[in-house]
Amino acid sequence: MNEGTKAVVLLSGGLDSATTLAMALDQGFDCTALAVDYGQRHRSELEGARRVADAAGVELKIIKLDLRTVGGSALTDDIDVPEVGGEGIPVTYVPARNTILLSLALGLAEVLEAGHIFIGVNAVDYSGYPDCRPQFIQAFEAVANRATKAASEGHPLRIHAPLIDLTKAEIIQRGTQLGVDYALTVSCYQADDDGKACGRCDSCRIRKAGFEAAGVPDPTSYVVGAI
Amino acid sequence: MNEGTKAVVLLSGGLDSATTLAMALDQGFDCTALAVDYGQRHRSELEGARRVADAAGVELKIIKLDLRTVGGSALTDDIDVPEVGGEGIPVTYVPARNTILLSLALGLAEVLEAGHIFIGVNAVDYSGYPDCRPQFIQAFEAVANRATKAASEGHPLRIHAPLIDLTKAEIIQRGTQLGVDYALTVSCYQADDDGKACGRCDSCRIRKAGFEAAGVPDPTSYVVGAI
Repeated sequence: MNEGTKAVVLLSGGLDSATTLAMALDQGFDCTALAVDYGQRHRSELEGARRVADAAGVELKIIKLDLRTVGGSALTDDIDVPEVGGEGIPVTYVPARNTILLSLALGLAEVLEAGHIFIGVNAVDYSGYPDCRPQFIQAFEAVANRATKAASEGHPLRIHAPLIDLTKAEIIQRGTQLGVDYALTVSCYQADDDGKACGRCDSCRIRKAGFEAAGVPDPTSYVVGAI
Repeated sequence: MNEGTKAVVLLSGGLDSATTLAMALDQGFDCTALAVDYGQRHRSELEGARRVADAAGVELKIIKLDLRTVGGSALTDDIDVPEVGGEGIPVTYVPARNTILLSLALGLAEVLEAGHIFIGVNAVDYSGYPDCRPQFIQAFEAVANRATKAASEGHPLRIHAPLIDLTKAEIIQRGTQLGVDYALTVSCYQADDDGKACGRCDSCRIRKAGFEAAGVPDPTSYVVGAI
């Protein structure tokens, strides 16, 4: 299908983006992975991105962005990560995160002359983040097509969000079919230095429930005493 | 008019953004300035942003973003800055720059609970950058209103580009009326460590012609021998 067609794939080191990369490769795209080092507390995420990219044989670019000067999130500030999901939008929200990630991917896509960007957002088990919905992705695609040299020269850019309508269980089933080794990935908001997951934060709870619902053994390494 | 209404103003240290800040303040907005340290070669730009913010009595936030891992521009790579404007889009183009700047401003606006973002883009003397056009600004405003917690809670966000239809001469006349001290600003793509301008790059040429057309004395410090 898309053999040799260049794509930039946003890779966080988590389960969703690892599956997205596998799907992009399965569709034949020539992928370059992009991770953003935005001063996240869970540094082991970036090591997960490195492992996933290496396992897939894909080049990984890392852009450093220090969002701590902006603040506003438990993921980059010194606020405790909540263990139990509450109402509304969680404090683990990083301001404008997917807009920032997509804009950096757009910059890399321009340099590589790639016409496709993949992002592993998901509107089903999405923890209430507003920038994980289809109308956001469509709006960003419109920006991309007004922002870039390539688009202004008649080469439109497409944003792919292949997980957007899938449940976590469906994502895990699809990735398992494609041979994704989820033991390489880190989803926990407060994983320890070895990438071991806490088992208690929102992200861990959604992930564990996903493996259960998918009927796939959970390969995640949890810290001792995690429930 | 907008007394006490919070706004984020993108400030590069150049003539356009200094004028934009003055216009936002004149409209009564409670402004926070945002500069992005994206590894630009013309470091004195950031010092210009600091001087302009200090003179206006406005807080300046600086976000560090290392775009050199992405490359693709004479402004961040080791490519010579061209002296004479050519056809099409110049090599001084930074990939997806205004998309990236606006997305970072959006993050800061969310944290500050600011409903307004100002950017000094200009579609008249714009050197052919595609992300300086009204349709780009409109598309980004649509993204902002689908991306954020505030928008999802019913507080729309507005992107202001008050210079978009002005010539450089009109911008200079407006800023001069508002008391902008253009001697504090740096427009040159290759200013020296003291902020002295080369007088030859595209940006210098547009700026010089702007002061001439505005009938305003040019306060720019040029390097010895600049024409």
